[in-house]
Amino acid sequence: MGKPILLACDWGTTNLRAWTLDQAGAVVADRDFPLGVSRLAPGEAASRFESEVRPGLDAAGLPAILCGMVGSNLGWITVPYAECPAGLGDLATRLTAAAERVRIVPGLRCEGLAGAPDVMRGEETQVLGWLAQHPDRRTGRQFVCHPGTHAKWVLVEDGRVVRFVTAMTGELFAVLREHSLLRSDAPVDDDAAFEEGLTAAGQGDALAARLFTARARVVGGKAAPGSTPSYLSGLLIGAEVASVPRLLGEAPGEVALLGDARLCERYRRALTRIGIAAEAFDGEAAAIAGLFALGAPP
Amino acid sequence: MGKPILLACDWGTTNLRAWTLDQAGAVVADRDFPLGVSRLAPGEAASRFESEVRPGLDAAGLPAILCGMVGSNLGWITVPYAECPAGLGDLATRLTAAAERVRIVPGLRCEGLAGAPDVMRGEETQVLGWLAQHPDRRTGRQFVCHPGTHAKWVLVEDGRVVRFVTAMTGELFAVLREHSLLRSDAPVDDDAAFEEGLTAAGQGDALAARLFTARARVVGGKAAPGSTPSYLSGLLIGAEVASVPRLLGEAPGEVALLGDARLCERYRRALTRIGIAAEAFDGEAAAIAGLFALGAPP
Repeated sequence: MGKPILLACDWGTTNLRAWTLDQAGAVVADRDFPLGVSRLAPGEAASRFESEVRPGLDAAGLPAILCGMVGSNLGWITVPYAECPAGLGDLATRLTAAAERVRIVPGLRCEGLAGAPDVMRGEETQVLGWLAQHPDRRTGRQFVCHPGTHAKWVLVEDGRVVRFVTAMTGELFAVLREHSLLRSDAPVDDDAAFEEGLTAAGQGDALAARLFTARARVVGGKAAPGSTPSYLSGLLIGAEVASVPRLLGEAPGEVALLGDARLCERYRRALTRIGIAAEAFDGEAAAIAGLFALGAPP
Repeated sequence: MGKPILLACDWGTTNLRAWTLDQAGAVVADRDFPLGVSRLAPGEAASRFESEVRPGLDAAGLPAILCGMVGSNLGWITVPYAECPAGLGDLATRLTAAAERVRIVPGLRCEGLAGAPDVMRGEETQVLGWLAQHPDRRTGRQFVCHPGTHAKWVLVEDGRVVRFVTAMTGELFAVLREHSLLRSDAPVDDDAAFEEGLTAAGQGDALAARLFTARARVVGGKAAPGSTPSYLSGLLIGAEVASVPRLLGEAPGEVALLGDARLCERYRRALTRIGIAAEAFDGEAAAIAGLFALGAPP
């Protein structure tokens, strides 16, 4: 492990994850800060960064590279989106200086469904960092899924993000679990109920009707109420993997999953079950690779 | 208008609607009571009925017929579901006495999606009452939709409900409007945004992704935030009408809508747009016809 040359941050809505990296891109130190942009007062990002993040990682003199919602109107400064198609080289020419020695990676924008734009901030760095980690994937076509509150399905061609689509699956799960007739405090830990939910998802159509089965199976005495969150997770993820990728213009034969390991594993099971090969990769390592590729001093 | 011979009640989760009917089934008097079963203490239905509903309609001595959630475990007594297929004659033989001169109409059960039973309590009386109002519809096949929090799509053959499917469309709308990123207090009154939502619904697949367009069109500056509830209503109803009826086994050429007039009108627009003829009928009149057919003294 060499001496740190770069401070890299994935600065999102709820959290800020920071690493110092050496000249090979290896992590020297890392730390989380509860400084997600939704928790910041307006105009506060700069001072919190200098007074907490830099000292917290002994990174006083290092160049810094940031990605995520820090580049939105809730963050430090608003960084214009880069338009698709875009690869690492395109992002590198569009980094925006937020302060001396601090640059922010632009998010991506593409034409979305129904004539509205689709956007991402942060996932582009993971997706393109993952490509940087896998030189063999830099030619041809790749499907990448980044599951989460707003899951991203990304089509990459020859190293550039061509287009993507956002699915509110995680948010749907949260509001239904907390506020609907299907509400439950039980954890998502029932594998059999998750599989049942995958089956009930069908082709991903008629979701409002399929959701009612989460109620009917309990009222009908076929299942314990505590299995509802696992069933609901299977139903929503199953509906997503069966229908959303088609919106990219073709069905993928293989999907790379990037993100939280437990959630990726659920998506992997859902994809495998409908005959789509899936492999999960470490989203954090991908983010680090992307930030290093974009931010390392020449 | 003759003298009252029957006290008829649609006693649901949040409200109790009551009518006295004459020997021709015409309404002599009507009244709403805030006595929905969700507002009752356990065991309270009988006493509130005798002390408030009967006196409130001068119906002390009349036979009474009740339908709806009053027949559930939250209501007066639990009335076993009648199994599909079932018509008025089948329900008539399964009325359950809750007290002297008080009978409750059974709900219906059929095999639903994913091996779970689907159920209704109250809508069966409207659907079969509507058939009683329209003798020409009593042979052949009819598709009926009862929109609402839990919308019911019902297939009727030769006067009997063969099967049905429940869609949580109204509940999805409510939780998204109140608790998600799409939350808004604005009313559903923007016709253009509603139509936009219908368009964005596509074939009713990939709903989690289509929902994100409700956010993207506002963030992208294409639409005012106040139009979100109208757009969301169009999106969810559009997705429902495009996909749920197929679950009944075939696509309907024509749908009869029963229920709230404003909501039926939204469904009518959504159906018409995808080439399905739709006609809205008065749900209250249908409920009265059904209760009269089942409860009138011989």
